[in-house]
Amino acid sequence: MKLQVTQENLNRALGNVAKVAIASRNPLPIVSNVLLRTVDNRLLVSATNLEIAISERIGAKILDDGAITVPARLMQEFVAALPSGVIDITLNDHKLKLTSSDYESTINGVSADEFPVVPEITTTQRWIIPGLVMKKSLQQIIFTASSDESRPVLTAVYLHSHNGSLYLAATDSYRLAEKKMIDSTDDISLLIPSSAMQDLLRVIGDGQQDIELLADANQVQFRVGETEIVSRLIDGNYPDYRKLIPSSHAVSFTLNKEEFVTITKVASLFARESAGSITLKTDSVNGLVSITSIASQVGENISKASAEVSGDGEVTLNSKYLLDALGAFTAKKITFSFNGKLDPCVMTSQEVSDYLHIVMPLKG
Amino acid sequence: MKLQVTQENLNRALGNVAKVAIASRNPLPIVSNVLLRTVDNRLLVSATNLEIAISERIGAKILDDGAITVPARLMQEFVAALPSGVIDITLNDHKLKLTSSDYESTINGVSADEFPVVPEITTTQRWIIPGLVMKKSLQQIIFTASSDESRPVLTAVYLHSHNGSLYLAATDSYRLAEKKMIDSTDDISLLIPSSAMQDLLRVIGDGQQDIELLADANQVQFRVGETEIVSRLIDGNYPDYRKLIPSSHAVSFTLNKEEFVTITKVASLFARESAGSITLKTDSVNGLVSITSIASQVGENISKASAEVSGDGEVTLNSKYLLDALGAFTAKKITFSFNGKLDPCVMTSQEVSDYLHIVMPLKG
Repeated sequence: MKLQVTQENLNRALGNVAKVAIASRNPLPIVSNVLLRTVDNRLLVSATNLEIAISERIGAKILDDGAITVPARLMQEFVAALPSGVIDITLNDHKLKLTSSDYESTINGVSADEFPVVPEITTTQRWIIPGLVMKKSLQQIIFTASSDESRPVLTAVYLHSHNGSLYLAATDSYRLAEKKMIDSTDDISLLIPSSAMQDLLRVIGDGQQDIELLADANQVQFRVGETEIVSRLIDGNYPDYRKLIPSSHAVSFTLNKEEFVTITKVASLFARESAGSITLKTDSVNGLVSITSIASQVGENISKASAEVSGDGEVTLNSKYLLDALGAFTAKKITFSFNGKLDPCVMTSQEVSDYLHIVMPLKG
Repeated sequence: MKLQVTQENLNRALGNVAKVAIASRNPLPIVSNVLLRTVDNRLLVSATNLEIAISERIGAKILDDGAITVPARLMQEFVAALPSGVIDITLNDHKLKLTSSDYESTINGVSADEFPVVPEITTTQRWIIPGLVMKKSLQQIIFTASSDESRPVLTAVYLHSHNGSLYLAATDSYRLAEKKMIDSTDDISLLIPSSAMQDLLRVIGDGQQDIELLADANQVQFRVGETEIVSRLIDGNYPDYRKLIPSSHAVSFTLNKEEFVTITKVASLFARESAGSITLKTDSVNGLVSITSIASQVGENISKASAEVSGDGEVTLNSKYLLDALGAFTAKKITFSFNGKLDPCVMTSQEVSDYLHIVMPLKG
């Protein structure tokens, strides 16, 4: 193998690809390596943790074909530290020699034959999603996915079609977020590991490029420009969460988002002893919402805000979940609706109707 | 106690003061509280970890005198989260009630009688140091102080006079930094805990205010505007470090700082296996400096840069110390001088001659 690449191109590719190898907890040593392979007069850079594989093809002047794997972290940090310009790369007997203006390095590699093969996707069905839509949608829902591996289905982001639209949803059973992305008449239902979606979010960058989505029964593939992410799908059925969303509400209030955040934050400071427990209460006569928190040791707080209120009632929530939810809204006004003390609380916004957030109350 | 303060003033004072209580590892519970006391028609806010005490006086409308201590972290975060405007504060039976527009909180306090008393400084000698000079000087030297409590003297920042100037110096015995601050004919020699200097650095802020320095045999006091920091001094004699600074050098090179940083960073990536060990080598014939690092497992690197070189030689250093040192220089060109493989390496700059950095070579 003998080739020339620019530091800019190789650095960008390693930035997109290497993290999946660096962050991997897989004990197989080669998984922490990155694969470099000449393919069709270009350089393929790829990494995998055996569940997710990311690869990128970059322009290169190929003088001799070949392939090698090298430690991902060292390679990424090394190329990132180099000044811009041309890098000469030569492989001699598993030793990768990199030379640029003032630098000369040798990195010991491992044969590319030992690198895990990522199965190809076999499908003709594909979707195109604008990069910015995917980016904003993921940011609004991904944090509600569970990290508890004992219920794998809930660690997924649920990408699915419903009534002529493509949706993303995620839930950890304590809260749920759902986002309508684009219109689509195709039928799709994928349980994608939220870690793969985190990688996608990173690769999307500023979201200027369209995202191509392909899927078969076992795998999903996202293509963003020259970068490809392939992930296994999670087996199982996603909970039929639409059944849980109440269709009517006894109590409802609409409040400026910024004020809602402030009164919740102040209340949460007094809720540390009680694992974040705060109580929201409406007063429809005076048009007031109050949040109460009590810490028997340190003190207590009541925060109030004027709001458009319909109905009187109270509900107790985890303040962290409420703050997370408020942070995910891009709208300026939030509508918060609930039925009794045990029914799901629903947060929406009149300005933008494509996002829904549900938080389960705390019992007593 | 009954008074009114603005959120802005109370928030600024707590921001300056509370951290010493919050970060304290002292097991005495009251140390994690902040003291509020009406003094001369103002509100005194203070905290201490029994080694360092910080206090600030703020304007307030005092209706009834009094004093109380409350949990520092809760109080600081609570006031920071409140919107700007007037806060009404009332004390009833150790319960501090705080009311502002939409918020009503009660924080349970502990009697001010139990709060540790900070001894007063008894001295008439004082120095004035411009805030910006103190800030920049501390940033250049403080990180070389030791954190190893088994040699307390080296955990100090050494503030002292020498040949008509006031100096700051710090060393952990592997490296040393020295900064000349201002001219001063007074005699002074103080071993100030570097943690107190960290607090001072935080309180200095943008450095627009002069700093007043007072000291007696046991304590030092810094006054920045309305904020006072009092710290105990460290007992002992500071090493006579000036004796260690070589007066002549066999080898010396001058290099653009940015390039020096880049070639050191690249080399350091290959020096992880060898605890950061890199070897600098000069080539006076070709006007080159090279840095070599070898990691038997992963590979090796040589980085080069053109430099003004006088003399040929090589020396092995810890790349972390070299990078730290380079980061502390504000000059654009750095002169690096050394004698043999075991003598201290001296870093200076021709542009600004008030800063000196010494790094000890690694043996072998």
